[in-house]
Amino acid sequence: MDKTAQTDYPIHEFLKTRWSPRAFAAQPVETEKLLSLFEAARWSASGANSQPWAFIVTTQETPEAFAKLLGTLGERNQLWAKNAPVLVLSATLSEREPGKTNPWAGYDLGQSVAHLSIQASASGLLVHQMGGFDRAKAAQVFELPAGYAAMTVFAIGYPGDPASLPDGLREREMDVRTRKPLSEFVFDGAWNQPLEEKIASAG
Amino acid sequence: MDKTAQTDYPIHEFLKTRWSPRAFAAQPVETEKLLSLFEAARWSASGANSQPWAFIVTTQETPEAFAKLLGTLGERNQLWAKNAPVLVLSATLSEREPGKTNPWAGYDLGQSVAHLSIQASASGLLVHQMGGFDRAKAAQVFELPAGYAAMTVFAIGYPGDPASLPDGLREREMDVRTRKPLSEFVFDGAWNQPLEEKIASAG
Repeated sequence: MDKTAQTDYPIHEFLKTRWSPRAFAAQPVETEKLLSLFEAARWSASGANSQPWAFIVTTQETPEAFAKLLGTLGERNQLWAKNAPVLVLSATLSEREPGKTNPWAGYDLGQSVAHLSIQASASGLLVHQMGGFDRAKAAQVFELPAGYAAMTVFAIGYPGDPASLPDGLREREMDVRTRKPLSEFVFDGAWNQPLEEKIASAG
Repeated sequence: MDKTAQTDYPIHEFLKTRWSPRAFAAQPVETEKLLSLFEAARWSASGANSQPWAFIVTTQETPEAFAKLLGTLGERNQLWAKNAPVLVLSATLSEREPGKTNPWAGYDLGQSVAHLSIQASASGLLVHQMGGFDRAKAAQVFELPAGYAAMTVFAIGYPGDPASLPDGLREREMDVRTRKPLSEFVFDGAWNQPLEEKIASAG
């Protein structure tokens, strides 16, 4: 099964091979490797270097915390996520000071998780991020401090066997990865003027 | 000048050497390289593969669009950004349908810009993201469609000479890069229980 992105322009191997599986190997993720993943998250950029991100890590070796986090996921996500070796709750400090929203709190957190995902890719690991969970419940059961918003839950692990997935999800695991063409979202100086046309006209 | 991150745990070279300079070389960025950067952004993850991101690219070769975007930046950012070869406006579709907010619109955009930054790092380029600009004005002058929010402006270019920067910014360019320690934001199953302690106790 090859899930490498079919790119229109060359990109680095780690970006090309990163994808979001549902089947993970049972093999645990070494704590040293996990720390490198979060170290990558640590060095991402953020507004005024505010670093609003926070993470609560649960693994199959911490079954109580793992079950608490798993219980916040939607049913369809639980079907496969229950077998992931690691589940992480990501949160962001959504207020700069009480009552004053930080408009980049989600943006900055997203960047840090992207760095983590790419470090995972470089380490032979894969990450699957989910928005399908009860954010309020997650904030409550993990007692997030005031101002922090639960944003995603993500699974980390080594690639697994799609055959291990339940019906329906097994087939989806084989789907070809798709994206909008660049012409729909990368513009040259004005909305809806594709940057790609510049290449075409110069060629 | 070495701006490589001083990491506590090993991370990949491209993540370690990525940083946000203010001094860029005058050398233009090849359009092919720009397309590879946005191709990297294209293949990042997003909620239900919604890909809410959009980008308006301006360069020194499109001076009218460049000046329009530069004019939305705060004064301190204009001081150095006026010499960057490329300035990009990033936007995100913040509503799934009219009146229904997408809570991950910023998060997903942040991921795509992180992918772009890391592809830049792999191509010898650097990216400097800014929140310090007039978001409403940018949305207006570039006529963003309803539902799209302007989120950041970022500069792209080859590394330049810090000596080219005005007083104040020149010194800042040399600053050692700093981040919070992992113990403050990566927790083991419960808030404020550092994952790093697991390594210490196992050692």
